[in-house]
Amino acid sequence: MTMTAMGSIGIVQPHSRHFAQPLPLRSGAVLADYTLVYETYGTLNADASNAVLVCHALNASHHVAGVHEGRERSEGWWDNLVGPGKPLDTERFFVVGVNNPGSCFGSTGPMHTNPATGRPYGADFPVVTVEDWVDAQARLLDALGIRQLAAVIGGSLGGMQALAWTLRFPARVRHCIAVATAPNLSAQNIAFNEVARRAIVTDPDFHGGHYYAHGVVPARGLRVARMIGHITYLSDDSMEAKFGRELRNGGLGYTTQDIEFQIESYLRHQGDKFSEYFDANTYLLITRALDYFDPAAAHGGNLTAALAAARDNRFLIVSFSTDWRFAPARSREIVKALVDNRIAVSYAEIDAPHGHDAFLLDDERYHGVLRAYFERVALEAGALRRIDASPHPAPPPPGRGDTRSVQP
Amino acid sequence: MTMTAMGSIGIVQPHSRHFAQPLPLRSGAVLADYTLVYETYGTLNADASNAVLVCHALNASHHVAGVHEGRERSEGWWDNLVGPGKPLDTERFFVVGVNNPGSCFGSTGPMHTNPATGRPYGADFPVVTVEDWVDAQARLLDALGIRQLAAVIGGSLGGMQALAWTLRFPARVRHCIAVATAPNLSAQNIAFNEVARRAIVTDPDFHGGHYYAHGVVPARGLRVARMIGHITYLSDDSMEAKFGRELRNGGLGYTTQDIEFQIESYLRHQGDKFSEYFDANTYLLITRALDYFDPAAAHGGNLTAALAAARDNRFLIVSFSTDWRFAPARSREIVKALVDNRIAVSYAEIDAPHGHDAFLLDDERYHGVLRAYFERVALEAGALRRIDASPHPAPPPPGRGDTRSVQP
Repeated sequence: MTMTAMGSIGIVQPHSRHFAQPLPLRSGAVLADYTLVYETYGTLNADASNAVLVCHALNASHHVAGVHEGRERSEGWWDNLVGPGKPLDTERFFVVGVNNPGSCFGSTGPMHTNPATGRPYGADFPVVTVEDWVDAQARLLDALGIRQLAAVIGGSLGGMQALAWTLRFPARVRHCIAVATAPNLSAQNIAFNEVARRAIVTDPDFHGGHYYAHGVVPARGLRVARMIGHITYLSDDSMEAKFGRELRNGGLGYTTQDIEFQIESYLRHQGDKFSEYFDANTYLLITRALDYFDPAAAHGGNLTAALAAARDNRFLIVSFSTDWRFAPARSREIVKALVDNRIAVSYAEIDAPHGHDAFLLDDERYHGVLRAYFERVALEAGALRRIDASPHPAPPPPGRGDTRSVQP
Repeated sequence: MTMTAMGSIGIVQPHSRHFAQPLPLRSGAVLADYTLVYETYGTLNADASNAVLVCHALNASHHVAGVHEGRERSEGWWDNLVGPGKPLDTERFFVVGVNNPGSCFGSTGPMHTNPATGRPYGADFPVVTVEDWVDAQARLLDALGIRQLAAVIGGSLGGMQALAWTLRFPARVRHCIAVATAPNLSAQNIAFNEVARRAIVTDPDFHGGHYYAHGVVPARGLRVARMIGHITYLSDDSMEAKFGRELRNGGLGYTTQDIEFQIESYLRHQGDKFSEYFDANTYLLITRALDYFDPAAAHGGNLTAALAAARDNRFLIVSFSTDWRFAPARSREIVKALVDNRIAVSYAEIDAPHGHDAFLLDDERYHGVLRAYFERVALEAGALRRIDASPHPAPPPPGRGDTRSVQP
């Protein structure tokens, strides 16, 4: 591998594209027309073989890497992974980030005008699924002239989209990289989503999902929803290590409503921040997309049968040892179903203390696995123009350190 | 052991006792006067050596066993454990259940009149701690003529009270039985409590804790609080086994606000029920008592130093393999600190699928351990009058089946 200094992409600009063709949804509803906001980094090569689609999770967006002009601390949510010389190297790959319909970062969503009423969609925005998002993403790729992706990658809910790509459009994607994800939500996962939704929906400022007209947002509900979510993103141990029973003011105040412990202060801060930028209807939609994702359901619960459609794809599955939201066992279900189908899969279980959040963090072993895997993807994709004098890049490490690899 | 048919206690009546002597609290505040509601089962023997105090957890009360006249399904919360011929045998022991101050089942609490204002305490009810409760319980025992308890027993928050008894009044208790508990809350435990409190406090119907005057209750907040709590009471696996991804109506409705999955229906039902009988100020007080409990804090975090006060007590510690709220590792911290002090401790880790809730359920191995331990307590307490021709009762099983026992 040629060693180059890793750098930031620098200033990036979002693009916007309108799609007049209606998008039929899994629910039976149709999105009459819609706009997708997206960003791209790097250069699409002559045969359009070096494109990588990055799918976002719950509260993220098309803004994957780089910064927005004039905005401090505006780095994209996967800026540590995507950039020149980074594991997903923008000097090799043409990287696409796209905001999903129903989200609240520019693509058509609940706060936009419902053409049927002339008022904001609000709670009438149609329910969208992971598969619907993949359909919308595919149309964007059509528009960008990308017939086949070198890879699709995502973490958590983004990982579900990456998996769905191989089932919806197996011929349009070579590699699927699914990080910290699951083949469906467990009852406990759904339960946490449901509590968060109830907190939002029962906030009197929700107004049945049409709060825009009232000039308010259900901030109380959003705060509670985010606090619940945040607990599930962190591991018990990392929360203990970071906060433990540390008091905010050194001593006990004996109060039921004021902050006593640092963990309370942290959670309230996370809730406050979130309620200022995230849309409540989007939160409902996206948690439902999580709930609904279940590719095995159409095959009587048989994940192996479901994943047979991906027989010509190659997979990297990554999980984190302390992720209790989507535990390694859930990733291993995917690996097993792929192995049962004799589909090429590498699996890395990273021993990381940070829980589900680890997929967003800069962990050397994790990024090492991704870097090595993308080297292979680049080799296949003819995207190695930056590499002149180097030997062939190494394949993913088969079992070093704390990672484990499964090769069927 | 003489075999007798296990029976229900039958109809029981709560008693009430007023205490005019002020109760000084850990916070520095004083409860000017107060009433305790309690129940007793069985008969106190001549030398008052057969008394067992049962301490209640978050949403329970003095009503431990038996039924209330004219009320269907009014069995006490530990009726499967306490009664004639049951593991805590009321034909041998005189069992006392007492509602703690600050609760909402009869003892002085936030909905009662604050003598300083003539209005309900509401949010002004003083913050109470586990140690304060133990002090109040000790005064009740004084009034009942019980100098020394044969045993104190509790699960979860009740287990913390049982532990606190051995530190506050080691000479007044022989055996401590602490089930599904912890030496303090982890950051994650506190985090869940804090989210629940925020849901309650930010409900507009909370009115700063003085909702009684407004003729409302913060039911929305209570529902969310209970739903969060309930997730932590069940194990991931038992929730999966009981509900999985089962749909309520057979097919998907594609809705963000209505119920799709059975787990949602179950949680909402739990939340609804709870909001109808539980007081919101009590919820705040009791979760804070949980947060504050930390006997090691006064000893620089050294639990062994903290438990040295209990050197003349004997302990049974019980945990459940799938309890992730108070995991077995937390119980083992207690066991280790006792062993370090060369204090007699039996430890049973029950392989049960039900999570934290297991301490309330009728599990053969769990109840077997408790039955055997109480046989020993009865022998010591001279409470064996029911047993005439039987050999000496067996000590707790040292390591059979799925239980493990530590004997220093």
